[in-house]
Parts: sequence; structure tokens; C-alpha cells
Amino acid sequence: MIERIAILGTGLLGTSAGLALRAAGFPGTIVGWNRSAEQARVALAMGALDSVADDPLEAALGAQIVLLAMPIYATLDFMEKLAQVLGPEQLATDVGSTKQAISEAAGRLFNRPDRAAFLPGHPMAGKERGGAELGDAELFRGAVWLFTDDPAAERTAVGAELVGGWRELVAGMGAKTLDLDPVRHDKLVAWVSHLPQFVATALSALLEDEVGEAPELKDVGGRGLREMTRLGASPFSMWRDIAHTNTEAVEAALYALEQRLAYVRENLRTPELRDEFERANRFRRE
Amino acid sequence: MIERIAILGTGLLGTSAGLALRAAGFPGTIVGWNRSAEQARVALAMGALDSVADDPLEAALGAQIVLLAMPIYATLDFMEKLAQVLGPEQLATDVGSTKQAISEAAGRLFNRPDRAAFLPGHPMAGKERGGAELGDAELFRGAVWLFTDDPAAERTAVGAELVGGWRELVAGMGAKTLDLDPVRHDKLVAWVSHLPQFVATALSALLEDEVGEAPELKDVGGRGLREMTRLGASPFSMWRDIAHTNTEAVEAALYALEQRLAYVRENLRTPELRDEFERANRFRRE
Repeated sequence: MIERIAILGTGLLGTSAGLALRAAGFPGTIVGWNRSAEQARVALAMGALDSVADDPLEAALGAQIVLLAMPIYATLDFMEKLAQVLGPEQLATDVGSTKQAISEAAGRLFNRPDRAAFLPGHPMAGKERGGAELGDAELFRGAVWLFTDDPAAERTAVGAELVGGWRELVAGMGAKTLDLDPVRHDKLVAWVSHLPQFVATALSALLEDEVGEAPELKDVGGRGLREMTRLGASPFSMWRDIAHTNTEAVEAALYALEQRLAYVRENLRTPELRDEFERANRFRRE
Repeated sequence: MIERIAILGTGLLGTSAGLALRAAGFPGTIVGWNRSAEQARVALAMGALDSVADDPLEAALGAQIVLLAMPIYATLDFMEKLAQVLGPEQLATDVGSTKQAISEAAGRLFNRPDRAAFLPGHPMAGKERGGAELGDAELFRGAVWLFTDDPAAERTAVGAELVGGWRELVAGMGAKTLDLDPVRHDKLVAWVSHLPQFVATALSALLEDEVGEAPELKDVGGRGLREMTRLGASPFSMWRDIAHTNTEAVEAALYALEQRLAYVRENLRTPELRDEFERANRFRRE
């Protein structure tokens, strides 16, 4: 039923989605566009796309599903433009890491009888570095792909069909879908995704100051240190929009961890440390 | 030259050392002892040992090299006992995670002309769970094995020969050796090993409180969350002695990270956040 997909933004996630759709046997056409054309050509050469478009709106006009795979503010900009040109036979969806602003825009600009449908989405997958050349057909396998579903997106028969079709394609890429309210989504990812990132950044930056001048000492930390600082390689460009659009929830999570570290520090020689280890052990128990 | 090794403590590290010695072609005999005999039998069945001893001191008496592979306070206890029974033709060494207390005991109890030699050691390798059954001949490959060398250990010809022989065996297990002063060792590992552990524990305990009751939400975090909390599974029993014997250095490292997290929290919307990401990126650059 779905035969034409446009991927706007062919960085790591957009390129991986194209490759995963192909690997899952999606038989239709995939057209791609990227602000820097070089990344779109890489995605094309990797087999993630059938063709590269010069004009993103033209590519979107010809597609049943438009996947926005770009940072959050760029997604919001494109939503404004697409709402003017897409029609009720079309569905737009995205991969943005925070969902309140995008869900609000979806309700304001889409999901009316005379407009295209919009399904806010967020695959919990990525790498510490971006770029089409890291695209991976297996990136979404076993990952959770969140939707902050707006039932209005399914108000029309075509909207319902396209939403159902996209959910099936996402499952075909190997992801598990889960629906959350957008407010709950942003609070949850502040804990399980944004907090780990900002901790890795702060820890890596601190260690750069403390032992950065003696690179041979980084080896000393071994696997534990490598894992705890891997996300320290994440570029600011990927995280700026998240810090700006989920500020309060991230502030609350960071503050809670500061308190927790102080508690551990004050209890290094008391029995409370045992309780804290046991609580941590429970989190890691299946 | 080295033909008889005793491994006292056949948990993860002791068993892995036995397996790695065998894998490297060590042709001599390896006798093992463990406080809980069951773990020694597991190590024997895995091929890490040639035999299991009933009495640790008797096993030590018959060996040229005695490897203490147990928690720090247990190591200190055994050092007191071994100093009374070992002679100048023997070398004891250990794998303890902090080195000031052990190095002080080594100087006080060993490394005199009429006593055995003692070489404090610390392989930077492990797993988030202990136990002989997780023993792995490859555990030390590529890892750094630190020594807080006391030149007095090499005062006698036999002492020098045994220290050199043990260093060669450690290199044969695939580890890179590095010598540090014990004070500098404990400060360094507070940053690159103990801080990552206590952060993972605090983060895991916090998340257990926040999302522990909805286990399906743990999946949402994906690989980043799994890596940042893997060490949360570490048992208190492995870390209690570290917290007690390196308290000040760990306190200082935790306090510095608390300050750093507060700085990130206060700058989520300012240009300083970019600088912090770039500093973190530098730490991860090769």
C-alpha cells in the first residue's frame, strides 16, 4: 500500500531508516534530500535511497510518507513548510528526541480533515557520531521506537491507513513500538536518555581536565571507563536542541543525580553505601 | 625458571590468571585455594589450576610465586600471615584495587634480606560480576597491569629474578605493565576507575527509584543507558574495601563531578554547553 517514501535528512538516522526499509524488503521507492547534498549522495551510494531530490518540498509532494530525520528545530521549521503543501492523502512523521514541541506543532498544523496527518516518532537508537556513512540497516533492531500518538492523525481513512502502514514498516525494521503521551515522553527520556548523555559529557570533560594531558593513563581505566565516556564523543550539534526543548526535565534529572552523588560521597564509610549498591543492583536485574 | 605458582583466591581474577597463564604456555604447576572451596573446585574444573589446596599457607610455602587475588582487607590479613612463613626465595604479589595500604604493608613486612619479596600489583580488568565461573583467559589482554614497585623487592638476586619472571608472565597474559608510585596510583584510579563505578552506582540507584517499577521503560534507554549503568551491577562486596582505603581521593573526585554536573545544569541554554561538549569530545579523541 505504501509505495513512495521521502526521507528529508539523510544523516545517521535517515540513512539507517532507508537501509532498514530495504533490508526489510520494502518494495517501493525512497527519495532522499539533505541540506548538504554530499550526505545525500553518500546515502544513495550506500543503497539507502533510489534517488536524491534537489528540492525537499517537491520530494515531499510526491511521497505518501515523509520522514523528517533532522534536529528538532529543523524539524519544526519543516513542519511549518510541509503543512502548507501536503494534503490529506499524506503522512509526515519524524525522529526528534523531544516530543512536546513537535506534538504541539503537529496538532496546530496537521491532523485536520483538510490537512496531512502527522505522527510524532522517536527511535531510541543512535551512535555517538552522526553522518550518512555510519548508516546501518540494523540500527533499529531491538530498539524501542516511541510514538507520541495523536489519535487525530487517524481521523481520515487514509490517515489511519498510513499511520498503520508506517507502524508496520517500523516493526519491519526490527524496532519495538511504544506509545506515550508527549509530556510523559519528555520526562521519561530526560531520565533514561538525556541524563546518561549529560553525565557522560560532564565526566569526560572533567577527566579531560584531570588526566587529558597523559593519554597513556586513559588506558588504565579499561572497559568501564571507555563505556562511561563513550557518549562523551557526542557532538554538541545533536544535543543543543534537546537541551533547549527539554530544559526543565533535564535540569531536574541532573539535580537529582548531583544529590545522589553527594549522598554516596558522604556515605563511603557507612552502611548506607551497601544499600545504594543493592538498589543499583536491582536496576540491573532482569 | 618459575615452576610453582600458588593462587590464593580463585574468584574472577584468580581463576582468569590461572587460565591466562595456561593459555600463554606456562609449563609449571598452579595450586589454588579459596575460602569457599566450591569456587576452587570450579577453577580446577575449568583448567585454571592443577590442584586445590586445603591449607592456603601450605600451598604458599611450596610456591615460588604467591598471587593474592582477594579483596583488599583480606589481602592485608594474608600479608601478615605470609610474612611469617615465606622465605627470601619467594615472591608474593597481589591484585588489589588500591595500593597505598598494601604498599605500606609490603615495606613493613616483606622486602628485607631475610624475608620474601612483595610486588604490589593491580590489573585494570574485571567484570561487573565476580566468580570463578566467569574466569576468562583473555581477561587481561590489552589491559594495563599496574605495579607500585618497591625497588627493595629486587634487593636479592632471587627477588630480582622472581619480580622479573612475574612481569614476564603478566606480559604473556597479554597485559601492558606500567609502574606508578602508590600515592599517585590511588589518586589516578580514583579518577579513571573508582569515579566511573560510583557514578554508575548512583545513576542506577536513582533510576531504580524513578523508573524501576516500569521495567519496560528501561529498554527505552537503549545502548547508552545499558553502558552507563552496566557497572551498577557491581556487588558492594567488591567495592567496600576500595571505598574504605581510598576515601579521600574518591570524595574529591565525586565532589568535582557534582560541581561539573551543576555547571552543565546551569548552562543548558548558554554557549558554555558547547565548550563542555567540545572538552568531552577531546577526551574521547585518540
